[in-house]
Amino acid sequence: MIVILKKNPDREQLENLSNWLKSQGLSIHQSEGENSLVLGLVGDTADLDMELIRALDIVKDVKRVQEPYKNANRYFHPEDTVVSVGDTRIGGGYFQMIAGPCSVESPEQICEIARRVKAAGATLLRGGAFKPRTSPYAFQGLKAQGLELLLEAKKETGLPIVTEIMDLSQLDLFADVDVIQVGARNMQNFELLRQLGRTKQPILLKRGLANTLQELLMSAEYIMAGGNENIILCERGIRTFETATRNTLDLSAIPMLHKMTHLPVIVDPSHATGIAKLVKPMALAAAVCGADGLIIEVHNDPMHALCDGSQSLTPEQFDALADEVRAVLPFRCKSEF
Amino acid sequence: MIVILKKNPDREQLENLSNWLKSQGLSIHQSEGENSLVLGLVGDTADLDMELIRALDIVKDVKRVQEPYKNANRYFHPEDTVVSVGDTRIGGGYFQMIAGPCSVESPEQICEIARRVKAAGATLLRGGAFKPRTSPYAFQGLKAQGLELLLEAKKETGLPIVTEIMDLSQLDLFADVDVIQVGARNMQNFELLRQLGRTKQPILLKRGLANTLQELLMSAEYIMAGGNENIILCERGIRTFETATRNTLDLSAIPMLHKMTHLPVIVDPSHATGIAKLVKPMALAAAVCGADGLIIEVHNDPMHALCDGSQSLTPEQFDALADEVRAVLPFRCKSEF
Amino acid sequence: MIVILKKNPDREQLENLSNWLKSQGLSIHQSEGENSLVLGLVGDTADLDMELIRALDIVKDVKRVQEPYKNANRYFHPEDTVVSVGDTRIGGGYFQMIAGPCSVESPEQICEIARRVKAAGATLLRGGAFKPRTSPYAFQGLKAQGLELLLEAKKETGLPIVTEIMDLSQLDLFADVDVIQVGARNMQNFELLRQLGRTKQPILLKRGLANTLQELLMSAEYIMAGGNENIILCERGIRTFETATRNTLDLSAIPMLHKMTHLPVIVDPSHATGIAKLVKPMALAAAVCGADGLIIEVHNDPMHALCDGSQSLTPEQFDALADEVRAVLPFRCKSEF
Amino acid sequence: MIVILKKNPDREQLENLSNWLKSQGLSIHQSEGENSLVLGLVGDTADLDMELIRALDIVKDVKRVQEPYKNANRYFHPEDTVVSVGDTRIGGGYFQMIAGPCSVESPEQICEIARRVKAAGATLLRGGAFKPRTSPYAFQGLKAQGLELLLEAKKETGLPIVTEIMDLSQLDLFADVDVIQVGARNMQNFELLRQLGRTKQPILLKRGLANTLQELLMSAEYIMAGGNENIILCERGIRTFETATRNTLDLSAIPMLHKMTHLPVIVDPSHATGIAKLVKPMALAAAVCGADGLIIEVHNDPMHALCDGSQSLTPEQFDALADEVRAVLPFRCKSEF
Repeated sequence: MIVILKKNPDREQLENLSNWLKSQGLSIHQSEGENSLVLGLVGDTADLDMELIRALDIVKDVKRVQEPYKNANRYFHPEDTVVSVGDTRIGGGYFQMIAGPCSVESPEQICEIARRVKAAGATLLRGGAFKPRTSPYAFQGLKAQGLELLLEAKKETGLPIVTEIMDLSQLDLFADVDVIQVGARNMQNFELLRQLGRTKQPILLKRGLANTLQELLMSAEYIMAGGNENIILCERGIRTFETATRNTLDLSAIPMLHKMTHLPVIVDPSHATGIAKLVKPMALAAAVCGADGLIIEVHNDPMHALCDGSQSLTPEQFDALADEVRAVLPFRCKSEF
Repeated sequence: MIVILKKNPDREQLENLSNWLKSQGLSIHQSEGENSLVLGLVGDTADLDMELIRALDIVKDVKRVQEPYKNANRYFHPEDTVVSVGDTRIGGGYFQMIAGPCSVESPEQICEIARRVKAAGATLLRGGAFKPRTSPYAFQGLKAQGLELLLEAKKETGLPIVTEIMDLSQLDLFADVDVIQVGARNMQNFELLRQLGRTKQPILLKRGLANTLQELLMSAEYIMAGGNENIILCERGIRTFETATRNTLDLSAIPMLHKMTHLPVIVDPSHATGIAKLVKPMALAAAVCGADGLIIEVHNDPMHALCDGSQSLTPEQFDALADEVRAVLPFRCKSEF
Repeated sequence: MIVILKKNPDREQLENLSNWLKSQGLSIHQSEGENSLVLGLVGDTADLDMELIRALDIVKDVKRVQEPYKNANRYFHPEDTVVSVGDTRIGGGYFQMIAGPCSVESPEQICEIARRVKAAGATLLRGGAFKPRTSPYAFQGLKAQGLELLLEAKKETGLPIVTEIMDLSQLDLFADVDVIQVGARNMQNFELLRQLGRTKQPILLKRGLANTLQELLMSAEYIMAGGNENIILCERGIRTFETATRNTLDLSAIPMLHKMTHLPVIVDPSHATGIAKLVKPMALAAAVCGADGLIIEVHNDPMHALCDGSQSLTPEQFDALADEVRAVLPFRCKSEF
Repeated sequence: MIVILKKNPDREQLENLSNWLKSQGLSIHQSEGENSLVLGLVGDTADLDMELIRALDIVKDVKRVQEPYKNANRYFHPEDTVVSVGDTRIGGGYFQMIAGPCSVESPEQICEIARRVKAAGATLLRGGAFKPRTSPYAFQGLKAQGLELLLEAKKETGLPIVTEIMDLSQLDLFADVDVIQVGARNMQNFELLRQLGRTKQPILLKRGLANTLQELLMSAEYIMAGGNENIILCERGIRTFETATRNTLDLSAIPMLHKMTHLPVIVDPSHATGIAKLVKPMALAAAVCGADGLIIEVHNDPMHALCDGSQSLTPEQFDALADEVRAVLPFRCKSEF
């Protein structure tokens, strides 16, 4: 950490600051600039409150030298992490398509869609049992029953399942779920992250609507600090001033995350855009710029879907998308960091 | 709801849409514009998926006429809600100052600060026992022990306490807490909101960093739908591109929320700015533009505070702030909606 | 336009509003909802101030039915516009790569780079003569002399040139420029747009950092209203809360703009990301999701470039990018609107 | 400037970088951290491209120690700047209200409004002659004739006038204008700023919709670099995801700018909110948190105003606002930086 002091700082205050920093186990390199004095702090500054130092009268600014995430940091772990879900692998060159309905609605619906997306090339099945909905008056998912229907669809098709947990109290119900999804609104539900760190199941961690890439990695760090390193990151659109699309899909996050971390990164073009006709172009774009996979909403009857029908593809549209994605995969960009 | 169709829509598709809308219990008023045909839907459209209709080929756009929140809507409840916490009232002309440390650290610390902020005029005591921290390596609060210390400080000073719940599993521990705070990161933790709707305790609901005023009211609606109408809304800064301050305090939200809802609205200038020297000017601004209260961080030793010391005021600084706020209260702007 | 009134509006105010609307040449369809009365306005509402109507006491809300842009609207002009620059065409299936240095620095530099990017497959040469710089102390471009050097490079290589105009006073100097670029910061310089509408030269119109797609089309509309329909739109990143990349490249804008307008749309991954190593993945992503072209910064000596060296590719890196872009072009997504 | 290198950097690359930095006239302090090597650069780094250095393989990050603005920097000029407009002063404790219509429409309109706002206590008259409008089909202002009408109103009332310049070509027409306004969309029109630096007239510089405080000061720096130090900054709302108000008024910018710069700062609550009923609460808030003045839209007949009627106050509403602002002025917060 670098502390930039005003020119000719009050000597007593400077001594106080120096003593306090040393009491935190840090050593100090001092160097004089034209209009400021710079202190370089050597030692573990991860827990130091840089805002507090910045608030001091003699201090102009404070800059962090080291990223605050360790386990998730590619700088310390240069090799790609490959997450295994049964025989399926994601990351380190392995690309997977996850597909299925927004919500599980009935045994027929989920099994029919599971068969269709498997035939099209999807290797994992998604489906919501517990649904986070902005309105208390909207359909909230089939809950425990929905999880059972997903497991049935898995038995029929062999596809491992991905589904979202909304609250810690549901964790026991998720024992047989292959990949536990943490939704965008829960990205900073730290109690939930901490507990998921004690499971062994792979976690699909979605980026929050207003969260930076660094914050996404800090949330991954929560899970990893507990011992679970099977994390798949997911870009699903951020909130900006633009209202033509539901969110703004940040595809430059893909190569940037590949630089920052060794964890695999997938993209959710369905929730990012909210518009079925934008899903295919964004899926292709995500694939060529280096994403390790896609998660796509597919429904056999979008007009009657109980939620998010407008962004769902029909199975026929997903067939076409999967074909086109496969065609561009050989041209996928490799990160050069 | 208004559905805007393209000129000369396909007749069969139009009939399908009309039949489907009628099957949802709606009646339809049709009117012809220059370049479009407009359907006015009459009936309860709260559950209708407007994005789904928008995705149809014959549809140009869909517009909502009615806000999706009901219980929180001033249109249906024109009188101000006054929330009572013991003998203390907030809203409808009653203005309160809530103050205390970011984190409870020790019996001496919380009691000393409680005495000081009470003497300065605060009527509720805040303090964090469970702390949401971006880094898993940072201090996470004293948890259950912190709650006990808060209750002790309440016994000593008589100040009702406000503290944050981070997870449903903590709810039993909050039985004696006077006001349960839902933090910005939990504003859309719908399971938590739903359960809080079944308690009788007042809820302090903070606006999420990237949430619109309408979404804030939808989250209040979750709590109200369960039967708990004692909700205090809190503006605490939103995330924007500006990095000079930690967040951007949206003070126009105060009169705007007073137009949209009957619930009281307070402001947290400490978290919004992240900078101690900005707290007083923003507190004064919030008070005169109509806020029903303030929640302010105060610490007797900010340099050694275990978290967020940089935005905390000393008790002396809070004395000055409280005096200046009281001086402007007679000039507080009344909303004219 | 749709005007939503409160239930049981004051009769006199309603009559005043109705009379005023009729005096603007509009006819009114009235329909009654459950909690509101809805007025549908028929006629030309492009000039009507919807905010003014919204401010009336009896009005709950006002919604626009018709987009405010006409000439740029695909709804009225379904065929793709193809812009011709000499023998080179952009749009309607024609894809072009524009490349060159951020700034023109010397005859050797611009000619050398022009030869290299032409050899790699670029069909237009970009280069800045007038440079908008955030700091008054930074290099501001070679100005008129820079334009001459560009024309020399054109003579040598045959590549048409693209360069930015910063102010109306420079317009005479741009007589021989093939494509006049309007930078992001000038997207709403309405005087400039109006004058460019009177030229015949193709205009490359960049999206502003905080401008919506609709505002981009309104700016195109300014140029088109003057008679110049040769406009190429350019997505170059928008400003969001994320700081890991300089801007956030909004690639979903590509298919969305193709839905909204018939004008060609290209992408500038160099300015959007600000990081050389992100340029190739974003260029590939832009190409497959349907962009009509790319504009890329290339410099033979980025380490000594007078501006924006960090986002420039070397000619060798551009060779590789151009090869990879060509490889994915056959798989480019066609818009299905 | 601080350059953070990866651990054990390639020796040849490090030597190249060191030599290049020295060739720019800088000296280097080197200090070793746990996971990185840090170079402190001493000398004038204002022109150094930090992104370029960051792009090097051996470099982890680069941090700026010194703000890039000099003339506008309070660090170098601790005393408040007071801008004089005739006998009227703004800044350094002097607070002024600027009021008038969005657009000048007729001699009667502007003179009537001028008399009314003067009677209410406004000390400068605003009014638009050249109007930046998003739509080419909207009213664009009376232009040169509008300026004449403003000067007439000045002759009648004695109020100095403030009006917006949209393009350099209009500069000659502005010879008798007391304060030249640079609108939000022109905040980074660098050619215009440079020329205004050569005039002697006070400049009212509005913050751009997506511009940081630092960028605002860099634009002030452009004007000051030319010799004109009579600059009044204006916060007028920034663009965020929130759509309930037109923009988000960033009032914490007021004390923050007072920390960063010695220039006076005023607030425009009319454009920030776009809603007449929000103007008074935001005006009061701006005044108490330390603004040096207000600029407010007033129209004698908002229902028939040719532009932005919905955010205009009636003269009666402005009377009330002015009274209430005067009442809180004694309680205005003084910055403590």
